[in-house]
Amino acid sequence: MKRCIEVADIRECCQAWRRRGLSIALVPTMGFFHDGHLALMRRAKTLADRVVVSLFVNPIQFGPKEDLASYPRDLERDSALAAAAGVDALFIPTVSAMYGDGFETKVVLGALGQGLCGASRPGHFDGVATVVTKLFHIVAPDVAVFGEKDFQQLAIIRRMVADLDFNLRIVSQPIVRESDGLAMSSRNTYLTTEERQAATCLYRALVLAKTMAQRDERPTAAAIERTVRDSIEENAGFTVEYATVVDRASLAPAAKIDENCLLALAVRVGGRVRLIDNAPLFG
Amino acid sequence: MKRCIEVADIRECCQAWRRRGLSIALVPTMGFFHDGHLALMRRAKTLADRVVVSLFVNPIQFGPKEDLASYPRDLERDSALAAAAGVDALFIPTVSAMYGDGFETKVVLGALGQGLCGASRPGHFDGVATVVTKLFHIVAPDVAVFGEKDFQQLAIIRRMVADLDFNLRIVSQPIVRESDGLAMSSRNTYLTTEERQAATCLYRALVLAKTMAQRDERPTAAAIERTVRDSIEENAGFTVEYATVVDRASLAPAAKIDENCLLALAVRVGGRVRLIDNAPLFG
Repeated sequence: MKRCIEVADIRECCQAWRRRGLSIALVPTMGFFHDGHLALMRRAKTLADRVVVSLFVNPIQFGPKEDLASYPRDLERDSALAAAAGVDALFIPTVSAMYGDGFETKVVLGALGQGLCGASRPGHFDGVATVVTKLFHIVAPDVAVFGEKDFQQLAIIRRMVADLDFNLRIVSQPIVRESDGLAMSSRNTYLTTEERQAATCLYRALVLAKTMAQRDERPTAAAIERTVRDSIEENAGFTVEYATVVDRASLAPAAKIDENCLLALAVRVGGRVRLIDNAPLFG
Repeated sequence: MKRCIEVADIRECCQAWRRRGLSIALVPTMGFFHDGHLALMRRAKTLADRVVVSLFVNPIQFGPKEDLASYPRDLERDSALAAAAGVDALFIPTVSAMYGDGFETKVVLGALGQGLCGASRPGHFDGVATVVTKLFHIVAPDVAVFGEKDFQQLAIIRRMVADLDFNLRIVSQPIVRESDGLAMSSRNTYLTTEERQAATCLYRALVLAKTMAQRDERPTAAAIERTVRDSIEENAGFTVEYATVVDRASLAPAAKIDENCLLALAVRVGGRVRLIDNAPLFG
């Protein structure tokens, strides 16, 4: 596996592959790999001849009070895991190479970036859209793979690709969960042992919502949201930031409960850790 | 010369050229071609194997009170002129193809887009950056050619290409002037005969500024700007929107008069027509 720090190096590596007629899949990540990341990489292997993984903790998608400085990092372990997953090149740029002197151009979304996570993380999705645009230009992949845990990010990337006429395909990969149902996340490492045990309440709330939605007499979105919120906040230190039934395409609050609905969750734990999760209400 | 309306058609045309190893130059335009446009096209011919000209009056770069509806259009004449200039493909998309349902992604600039034309045309350069990004993605050119008359646009495109890691080269082409010095512009057709005659005052003011700047005792930027403004506003119906000595790279107001200075002008004529022009103070 190649490891590239410089933009020019990974660009040249990808151009050489393209000259040989090889297709390229990109998996953008912030590193500290878990099985969710590895599933993205293995999926990418099935979609193209070569797989590039970018590993960049992108400062412009973090708010001033967020966990940029403490975000977990372990480059040597990540490198070994990526190589074992069959990745062909790992791109690990520096912050100054990505955001040089005078940097001032951003890719910004409209309504899709405002609600849900966008409400509590202003500018977050603009930072994501901007760095993903840069990575798309540097690697020029045929296909890029994103996880469904960040479902709002996925919707935004799909919208951006359509709106700006990027010539590539976006593929999404289902959430990978721990054996007790907790969605895998690099941020799970922030949890204490007690919080980690209690954190299964997110998954249990999603299952509960699904059971409610599929009853003969369908509940309102508000009733589902209230039940979910209460079941999570029973746990000491758990505060629901949002628990919202949305249309999976538009991300707008659902007018009625049907096959297009997704329950989206963001929960703060102990005032320090922010976890997200989601599941369709049907299927 | 090929004429493509559909995004898929011009994309396929360019991909076929690239598969044959041919390089591509793009000239983005809003049509109603004059010799300035033709100079861009001829320059493009020297830079790549194939030349694509886009012709699109981009609604999102016009303000609500601007001249979108009245902007001059003559597709058949443009088509003949482009073919005669050796253009290989003319891309003439529809507004609905470029901005479909749910469109909401924009490319936005920071400080570079705020002053000068950005001050009186809020959102203009975001509209330009967005449409140019789309055209770059659709055509995937090796090189793109822009005119120096729109020097702030040129600076913004260069900044955007660097910031977002576009893999292409930007080439600029000097202003083409009428025999009496007026910079060529599609908007010159809005002028009455009297206004057209008086409009040479812009060019004469640029020459005057150059003469002043090159005196042994260098004047201040303010003195140059005042003289330029007065000499233009002597003409009935001519109002200077800005006459500013700027650093040609940063577009910031010049701290002192030197080789990096450019005088930039925007002038309103008869309250209806807006003309821009610029020239370096040295060389």
